Amino acid sequence: MLHDDSRETLKAREDALQQRYEAASKAGLSLDMTRGKPAPEQLDLADPLLGLPGAGQFHDQDNTDCRNYGGIDGLPAMKQFFADILGCRREDVVVGGNSSLTLMHDAVARAVLFGVPGGDTPWGQQGTVRFLCPAPGYDRHFEITGHLGFELVNVEMTEDGPDMDHVETLAADPSVKGVWCVPRYSNPTGITYSESVAQRLATMDAAPDFRIFWDNAYAEHHFGEQRQPVPNILTACRDAGNPDRVLMFTSTSKMTMAGAGVSAMAASPANIEDTRRHLLVQTIGPDKLNQLRHLAFFGNIDGLRSHMARVGEILKPKFALVQEILERDLGGKGIATWSNPSGGYFVSVTGPDDCARPVIEMAAQAGVKLTPAGAPFAYGLDPQNRIIRLAPSFPPLADIRQAMEIFTLCLELAAIRQRLAST
Amino acid sequence: MLHDDSRETLKAREDALQQRYEAASKAGLSLDMTRGKPAPEQLDLADPLLGLPGAGQFHDQDNTDCRNYGGIDGLPAMKQFFADILGCRREDVVVGGNSSLTLMHDAVARAVLFGVPGGDTPWGQQGTVRFLCPAPGYDRHFEITGHLGFELVNVEMTEDGPDMDHVETLAADPSVKGVWCVPRYSNPTGITYSESVAQRLATMDAAPDFRIFWDNAYAEHHFGEQRQPVPNILTACRDAGNPDRVLMFTSTSKMTMAGAGVSAMAASPANIEDTRRHLLVQTIGPDKLNQLRHLAFFGNIDGLRSHMARVGEILKPKFALVQEILERDLGGKGIATWSNPSGGYFVSVTGPDDCARPVIEMAAQAGVKLTPAGAPFAYGLDPQNRIIRLAPSFPPLADIRQAMEIFTLCLELAAIRQRLAST
Repeated sequence: MLHDDSRETLKAREDALQQRYEAASKAGLSLDMTRGKPAPEQLDLADPLLGLPGAGQFHDQDNTDCRNYGGIDGLPAMKQFFADILGCRREDVVVGGNSSLTLMHDAVARAVLFGVPGGDTPWGQQGTVRFLCPAPGYDRHFEITGHLGFELVNVEMTEDGPDMDHVETLAADPSVKGVWCVPRYSNPTGITYSESVAQRLATMDAAPDFRIFWDNAYAEHHFGEQRQPVPNILTACRDAGNPDRVLMFTSTSKMTMAGAGVSAMAASPANIEDTRRHLLVQTIGPDKLNQLRHLAFFGNIDGLRSHMARVGEILKPKFALVQEILERDLGGKGIATWSNPSGGYFVSVTGPDDCARPVIEMAAQAGVKLTPAGAPFAYGLDPQNRIIRLAPSFPPLADIRQAMEIFTLCLELAAIRQRLAST
Repeated sequence: MLHDDSRETLKAREDALQQRYEAASKAGLSLDMTRGKPAPEQLDLADPLLGLPGAGQFHDQDNTDCRNYGGIDGLPAMKQFFADILGCRREDVVVGGNSSLTLMHDAVARAVLFGVPGGDTPWGQQGTVRFLCPAPGYDRHFEITGHLGFELVNVEMTEDGPDMDHVETLAADPSVKGVWCVPRYSNPTGITYSESVAQRLATMDAAPDFRIFWDNAYAEHHFGEQRQPVPNILTACRDAGNPDRVLMFTSTSKMTMAGAGVSAMAASPANIEDTRRHLLVQTIGPDKLNQLRHLAFFGNIDGLRSHMARVGEILKPKFALVQEILERDLGGKGIATWSNPSGGYFVSVTGPDDCARPVIEMAAQAGVKLTPAGAPFAYGLDPQNRIIRLAPSFPPLADIRQAMEIFTLCLELAAIRQRLAST
């Protein structure tokens, strides 16, 4: 344990690490652990998609010519596919384009301009409006609401979802319009929301136009054995008498081709009807051929799950290697804690206060790019400057090993220097 | 000429037409001339697209892996493709998703929420704002601005664009924020904007945040011999010292697969930079594989043009048949005039005042669906109730013949009855 070491021991360790750091810096590395991108080997598993649906194949199972105009919210079979992922009915689903982020942005933008069912005033005409950002969380969620004029409120993330005492207190204020949630393998801590958190979200006092943005981005993205079920928030909200409180999202982006997949939203009949009303003005309809392509590739939810099992086999050793090096280099030293998720795309490391930014800078100078400090927090500001997000999906194992060894070295060095400066 | 005929002649003609109408009504027809949809034979020409880019084919010419995340505004080669269509530079282009209507909607919505370069206030915070709707025009354009809170102002369409005296007078009012234009084969009259109209649009006095929405939807959609050039409005605006005044749009929807194509916007550097700033929040980027698919299919602008020549060969006899029957049944009778376009998707018929709605209803009762009366006007209201849009692209020739014969019969019958009632 760092705190038990003498000043001399720490100084000696600092020197040794500094020498290793200098040597590493001279190696001219260029490694990137910043983004939750699928690796080429994952994408290769979806290679047949590139030739689908195939010449002459353009009818869906209802004999719709998917090459032509028509249909605003997706093919019936594609709706069923997403309903199976999200645990809802086919008619609860609206199929979108290639980006679920766009579905979320547009849902917020519509609420700003027009309001939502149950609300009597557009969000954009209610004066100061606020949005809850469980943090660490997904920076691009927070950016949407920041960009569209909301005051962002950090809420601490716990082992089973946001700190619900805090959420309940905040949501009672009618200026609070919603909360961002990634209910499974949450970005970046990897936790899955508990039934109790979902129940409290569904039943708590909140404005009638409050919305839970439930981004189930990693619904089927397992690589470990532990598969904690995701609460069914749509049912929970309905049972609580708040059927319109939640909008659920997902996509195939990290299942097949990132950026060329299919996205979906699911919600109550009132929310879906309201969404359709706006979509009829905004678009000529989603790309039905890409839906047909994905249906041909997956077949159904079983096909999806066996595909995702193969994807998981590629990710598993990468995440295992991250754990191995964290444990080997930092285990028992009292410097950091880290998440050990069973799925998703990220590992979150919590170091000593005020260390995240210096560690990330040191790593960058040694040729290892990490997600910018603060990114997983509202306004990009980690109040304790101690959370570092690792994204090991894209690089090959050899790169992960090198990057992780430099990362743990930088973290230990920063922790020792901090300790030396404070004693 | 109808006006020269005696009452007896008209009565006799009415009886004869009424008998034919009753016979036709009993035939149980079900024909549809409502929508500007490509015919299956047109879509068949793009059949190879359904197997593209093909297994293992996922790199663009710059070696970008198009399966993964990255890039906010399109592949360089796709930008060049659209630049060649729109007559601008590659860097003026932002590539979108499958719907240029969405690009237009989102551009208006962004201006409502955030304003545009050169403006100091979001459109949504300027009190009453107005938008110019050259009519007859495209209903879905008008719906976007109607839905987003604008007061719509009809401007009369002439042979070479909107009535520019009227536009200039209106645009001098700073509450007027923009104008909708389809510069080539305008929906539904088929006219192409003249150089003089474009010059006046570019140079007229207007608010600094006034925008021309220049939807070049039919840029390459010729079937006739006459190919009047489309003015280069981007250059005209730049030369006039109003570089930011225009946003240009186009898409491949009616070139390859309707609803599964690629769209694009082009504009000044300030407009493009502003658009990119918002897109970085709204989306993870456009579908690069669909861009690669289209690039593989077309090759370049020459490939596109030879493809469109084949598409034109399919459309040509359909539009010729419409002209033939209009001329045969209505020619020289002084009842109606009609457009005779060299491209695009529509023919526009101008009948006697107050006749459009009754004619469309009569045709519907005989099993022929036509575009609803008034659709091409702001608020769906044709002030003279006399314009009827015909969309002959989708039905086969035999259906067009039947539908047209019933249409001309209904129009002549309505005109005769109106004449009899007024004498």
